[in-house]
Amino acid sequence: MINNFADRLIEQIRKKESAVVAGLDPTWEGIPEKIRHSASSVSDAVFEYNRRLIDALYDIVPAVKPQLAYYELLGLEGLSAYHQTVRYAKSKGLLVIADGKRNDIGSTSEAYAKAFLDINNCVDNFSVTRSAADALTVNPYLGIDGIAPFCDECNKNGAGIFVLVKTSNPSSGQLQDIKTEDGTILYERVASLVAEWGEDLIGKSGYSFVGAVVGATYPDQAKALRRLMPRTIILVPGYGAQGGSADTAAVNFNDDGLGAIVNASRSVMHAYKSPKWAEKYTADTFDLAARSEAIAMTNAINEAVARKLEAKK
Amino acid sequence: MINNFADRLIEQIRKKESAVVAGLDPTWEGIPEKIRHSASSVSDAVFEYNRRLIDALYDIVPAVKPQLAYYELLGLEGLSAYHQTVRYAKSKGLLVIADGKRNDIGSTSEAYAKAFLDINNCVDNFSVTRSAADALTVNPYLGIDGIAPFCDECNKNGAGIFVLVKTSNPSSGQLQDIKTEDGTILYERVASLVAEWGEDLIGKSGYSFVGAVVGATYPDQAKALRRLMPRTIILVPGYGAQGGSADTAAVNFNDDGLGAIVNASRSVMHAYKSPKWAEKYTADTFDLAARSEAIAMTNAINEAVARKLEAKK
Repeated sequence: MINNFADRLIEQIRKKESAVVAGLDPTWEGIPEKIRHSASSVSDAVFEYNRRLIDALYDIVPAVKPQLAYYELLGLEGLSAYHQTVRYAKSKGLLVIADGKRNDIGSTSEAYAKAFLDINNCVDNFSVTRSAADALTVNPYLGIDGIAPFCDECNKNGAGIFVLVKTSNPSSGQLQDIKTEDGTILYERVASLVAEWGEDLIGKSGYSFVGAVVGATYPDQAKALRRLMPRTIILVPGYGAQGGSADTAAVNFNDDGLGAIVNASRSVMHAYKSPKWAEKYTADTFDLAARSEAIAMTNAINEAVARKLEAKK
Repeated sequence: MINNFADRLIEQIRKKESAVVAGLDPTWEGIPEKIRHSASSVSDAVFEYNRRLIDALYDIVPAVKPQLAYYELLGLEGLSAYHQTVRYAKSKGLLVIADGKRNDIGSTSEAYAKAFLDINNCVDNFSVTRSAADALTVNPYLGIDGIAPFCDECNKNGAGIFVLVKTSNPSSGQLQDIKTEDGTILYERVASLVAEWGEDLIGKSGYSFVGAVVGATYPDQAKALRRLMPRTIILVPGYGAQGGSADTAAVNFNDDGLGAIVNASRSVMHAYKSPKWAEKYTADTFDLAARSEAIAMTNAINEAVARKLEAKK
């Protein structure tokens, strides 16, 4: 039975008592030497790295987020590891959010939607090598034409999308913060569109499978955005390496303690290198360090959300 | 010797006396049955289709534009055909514009930039299977952080980018036409940014390797955009199947008769199906039909540009 992606995600969040998404962004240099040197191929090295992270994290986080760019950088071998990773993560009960920020005109968005979310991978008598993720990040710049084909595909496959609203990078304001004629900010206009695009696609949980991306680095903006998109699940990047904290991430949660997931990539994957964990872990135990950091991050976010709800009472 | 991409493109446009870019957007259903049925794999079928199009077009058009979505849809097999296509097109003297509309925060944009434009594909002792295109389409929504890494990579490899400004699809106005506080339209603000981002990256031809995408379906907007980006090469999609004509495309050209390239995908690839060519060609001669259509389109655009320049005198 196929459920609404929002319901599936919230089920996992409740089960694992965590709103943390672990980024799986393997750079070649970031993979411990021992794994690189003993692997027979680039694909094997990347998958072995991800497999160890997944084994260390699958029971404590609801979802992983592979960033497509890092797999594409490693060519077909990298993408082969991506597809293996998607399959493996799903087999361990994790939801997979493919971070591709794809978008195009309607007919092309349809191709992207099927490429990343369609569980059927047969053409004529051939099967093609790809694995459907549970959700995909998408860019809003082309308007509804570029979004609707993703929603159609999500409906067929129980998948979801996260639409970029306010990104975590320093120059995100160059376009996103432009003030419009009616006094609203561009990112607010995009947020209103995201709420509109998703309003008929709400699951039993009360949340829509059309989510949004709002960076943890812009908490003031996030407050306004939360109000504009009450039934939207917000994917919050920018925690850790980019400077976002548990408190700046907590702003994105609703009063039900739900409605947001917080991603960390480098701070989890490379936790063993941080002063916080360097005494306890080495490159050989990068996966255990990632687990410790993911647990610490989960606790920090749960506490920050609890503080926020307490303060509201 | 590596040249500025803008110079390389203009050299090809002059040599071939054509500003037509042929889209290479293979859908499985769009590949003639004979090719599909005799191929031993999806990859072989897609590459054979593209190879025949390239053989029919390489001496008459300056560039081809494979749309990544259609290759990704066909999994690793599709992407294998993409890389073969890039290499083959380049070997025939064509420039390759990868249409991926990629973008992300800085560190991730760097990975995308290398994935699509870096001619070096070795990691440690492994080589990875990918082919550098000459240019990539990119999305501006994240501001300069998401663009600068592409410019750096272009500088290293003599490559270029085309930044989405005003797209050809019906709902492009939903965001792009929003009026801003100072009375300008969002797409104008993006155009000004594109001109600014590219101003120090101008080649001997007087054009920058930071190009722009402006749909042929919005000629009124294109007039204003041409003025805002005088040294920008404009990639004009939307000709043919999407409704753009030679005259609406001609608006994007400068008074030197240069400064724009016009893409057609379906109307060239599937020319044999159109009433215009159906008497002369069949699925077996789809490549010759594509050549005839590309020549007709080249002539139509050259004439429309000449008319426009004549009218200005």
